Amino acid sequence: MTKNPYQTLTELSTKASLFSGISMLLEWDQETYMPKRAIENRSSQVELIASLQHKERTSKAYTDALSALIDLETATILDPNLSKEQQAAVREWRRDYIQAVKLPTSFVEEFANASSAATHAWIDAKESNDFKSFQPHLEKVVELCRKKTEILGYDNHPYDALIDCFEPTMTTKELTTLFERLKVPLTVLLKKIQTKKEPNDAFLHKTCPRETQLAFGKSILKNMGFENSFSRLDESVHPMCIPIHPDDTRMTTRVYPDQMLVNLLSCIHEGGHGLYHSNLPKEHFGTPLGEAASLGIDESQSRTWETTIGRSLPFWQHYFPLLQKTYPEHLSSVRLEDFYKAINIVKPTMIRTDSDEVTYNLHIMIRFEMEKALIEGAVAVSDIPDLWNEKMRSYLGIVPKAHSEGCLQDIHWSLGAIGYFPTYTLGNLYAAQFFEVFAKEHPDWKERVAHGELTFIADWQKEKIHRFGRQYLPEDLCEKITGSRLSEKPFVQYLENKYNTLYHLS
Amino acid sequence: MTKNPYQTLTELSTKASLFSGISMLLEWDQETYMPKRAIENRSSQVELIASLQHKERTSKAYTDALSALIDLETATILDPNLSKEQQAAVREWRRDYIQAVKLPTSFVEEFANASSAATHAWIDAKESNDFKSFQPHLEKVVELCRKKTEILGYDNHPYDALIDCFEPTMTTKELTTLFERLKVPLTVLLKKIQTKKEPNDAFLHKTCPRETQLAFGKSILKNMGFENSFSRLDESVHPMCIPIHPDDTRMTTRVYPDQMLVNLLSCIHEGGHGLYHSNLPKEHFGTPLGEAASLGIDESQSRTWETTIGRSLPFWQHYFPLLQKTYPEHLSSVRLEDFYKAINIVKPTMIRTDSDEVTYNLHIMIRFEMEKALIEGAVAVSDIPDLWNEKMRSYLGIVPKAHSEGCLQDIHWSLGAIGYFPTYTLGNLYAAQFFEVFAKEHPDWKERVAHGELTFIADWQKEKIHRFGRQYLPEDLCEKITGSRLSEKPFVQYLENKYNTLYHLS
Repeated sequence: MTKNPYQTLTELSTKASLFSGISMLLEWDQETYMPKRAIENRSSQVELIASLQHKERTSKAYTDALSALIDLETATILDPNLSKEQQAAVREWRRDYIQAVKLPTSFVEEFANASSAATHAWIDAKESNDFKSFQPHLEKVVELCRKKTEILGYDNHPYDALIDCFEPTMTTKELTTLFERLKVPLTVLLKKIQTKKEPNDAFLHKTCPRETQLAFGKSILKNMGFENSFSRLDESVHPMCIPIHPDDTRMTTRVYPDQMLVNLLSCIHEGGHGLYHSNLPKEHFGTPLGEAASLGIDESQSRTWETTIGRSLPFWQHYFPLLQKTYPEHLSSVRLEDFYKAINIVKPTMIRTDSDEVTYNLHIMIRFEMEKALIEGAVAVSDIPDLWNEKMRSYLGIVPKAHSEGCLQDIHWSLGAIGYFPTYTLGNLYAAQFFEVFAKEHPDWKERVAHGELTFIADWQKEKIHRFGRQYLPEDLCEKITGSRLSEKPFVQYLENKYNTLYHLS
Repeated sequence: MTKNPYQTLTELSTKASLFSGISMLLEWDQETYMPKRAIENRSSQVELIASLQHKERTSKAYTDALSALIDLETATILDPNLSKEQQAAVREWRRDYIQAVKLPTSFVEEFANASSAATHAWIDAKESNDFKSFQPHLEKVVELCRKKTEILGYDNHPYDALIDCFEPTMTTKELTTLFERLKVPLTVLLKKIQTKKEPNDAFLHKTCPRETQLAFGKSILKNMGFENSFSRLDESVHPMCIPIHPDDTRMTTRVYPDQMLVNLLSCIHEGGHGLYHSNLPKEHFGTPLGEAASLGIDESQSRTWETTIGRSLPFWQHYFPLLQKTYPEHLSSVRLEDFYKAINIVKPTMIRTDSDEVTYNLHIMIRFEMEKALIEGAVAVSDIPDLWNEKMRSYLGIVPKAHSEGCLQDIHWSLGAIGYFPTYTLGNLYAAQFFEVFAKEHPDWKERVAHGELTFIADWQKEKIHRFGRQYLPEDLCEKITGSRLSEKPFVQYLENKYNTLYHLS
């Protein structure tokens, strides 16, 4: 019997996903255990696998199988026997395919070389606080990103083409609206909080041994549902989740001896990503039905865990006594309420990744506005440092003393990932909107979490989100779960409720 | 300017070597850190990379480039501009190529499937001590190995075709002669030793914490010349060396809390392999000039370190005081002479990997004789258990009570690696023959080692062996270094000198 095109496409796509998993292992190893001098050979390995993956997803056999299932021009489904799920998979395969074939190999290589050079330059520039040395590299990257928008095409705004690579169907217009609506309540809330006395958090900065910190992080992950049989936790400079396969989900955390919170929140955050990926349907591995819906949806899972749960009072009602037992010399005389206040201090900071729930999205806003202007051509790369400082003053009331804690702090632009930052805020918004539904369906969630129960949250996420893979577009998934389109309101409501109480605001 | 065929071949071969390095990383990860449930996905990844590697080494472009450099039929070098080293590389490329293309893809797949199934069956059979359940799988593997000898071809003995895959140009005839000559002196020496009282080694079996054991192993590796910048030591069930690249050499060890010697000798043994691979010329990575000469030569490096050095008195003159400091409660009252005797106890044992320097090669002899008979068809798989026990009685004077400690102990046959075992003995013979030259050139080696110097040994090995990669065939390398063909004499001489003294034999 000959294979039908859906089977053929599944096989070819699975092969490409195997390459992707191998890439991820190469990355995981590089960030955790690889000897330093191996980096040159590792780069050659990574490059080889990336080229094979691209070749696989654009081959003639792949094109033929896909074209038999869906009209590549009009997106009309051609095979009437496809199930609803299969139609969704084919729609997503087409989306990926069109992006992959539109970009000529020569462009992909030029882009890879430019961003690789830019990343090296960025590391040095950040270290020596020297924007000028990075500027020509970033100019090249921005130029190529602008070229990319032309190659990929767009209806309204060139930046649309870039967002679409990270968050399918999201537009510049919608993002602009969302950010506009967020801006006022966030800055108002921040100003109110800044009239209050800053809580004490000195006890969070005492020395805690590495191994103890790691063991505590692992105990939380275990309680979230992770087992050693299908997951790992290791250390790396930047915490990350590396989802090789639902049966091989790897998370990393960062451990600073005098900042216990960094490891705790990193573990919970990456655990949120990890749950999503380990709950994806294994039987659909290799197809879009076995992949995360979008970066924004992925981030919503990690942020739900890190912030809504991980920075909540109920969570620490259970975990604080355990943390006190772990570090009695630092915490035995600290009250839960004071610990809860300390881990939720709202205070403008230069560094996005160190920032609290209230100011975090202001950091993203700054980046979004600058990216949009760069792609429009309204702003030049050379304008970035001044513009950055101006926006920091305007949104957060602080100005970096050095570019290394200003416009050079993030790696994303050097990687050419313009269009990526907004997905962080989208993650926060999705998280809050989803959690409203969860809280309605689980009115006793606080009591259960306070008793150390966590898996019922993951079960809900699996039921509503994880098990569908990319079957629904992010906006459709949002409507399916919450009954409405994405809005900033639940997030603003969540923040106001939480911080009005916490800071005794009027 | 167009590339010359040597450049082209180097590029294609380097790509294949990148695949091989990726395979090794997949293996390293599987044996060290991979979550258990990931095994199924890992197998798919491994299979994919293996097929790509094979495709790369047999492609039309590869064939064309190789054929422009050497006559594939006659091995006549066609490009007069090749240097002596390049000619050697081309000769070795041809050897690999002929092996690769001779075996049809369908056969390679059948072999891979059969050995995979046999390995699974072997694990269960060993655990339940049930040879019968393994028998049909082994019969299939033996049948395919016999088929392989016909496909690959041979001049005199079908087993030649199998050895040649592991030890180029070695023959059944030469092996038979070497083993014949070894047999008498080894069994005579063993009998003499058995008339003597067995030294006490109870102090080697006290509980030593895992971390302490690992740290001691690492300190020895450091002293051998390893640095974290290009190497690692991890734990695995079976100690191994995984040489991804000279800049990425990974070793593993096995730690038993109550058997400190296992970890110590594993570290030194794998370190011997590791030095070879990390000393291979980086500039020739991807070509035969950047690869180990043969399994036998590779093993000679690890056995030199493990036995000639690692079980020597001078080595422990330096390390025993450090070991005493590490485990004072176990060793402070032990004399160096008694420790030295304990780590060199000669006593027949069921398990090859646990055996001493004298009996080790008798274990190999048994396997070699059985493999040869299986491939000749003189013996059936169903005869193995009885034959095994008979040979154990004859060579070692002991008979396994269970197949799990008899003919089911090793993984090699289930993997289809018939022809591999003899390289272990070849390693011992090469090691002894090379070391005679080393000792002549370094008459003060014992004093230097007793003072904790080790790198001068690695330097000698690099100068004489490592830096040449596969430039010389094993037999030619042996003549180049020692002035003579491989012989059992230096090894027998080494054993007699050592054990006559140690056991006060006449």
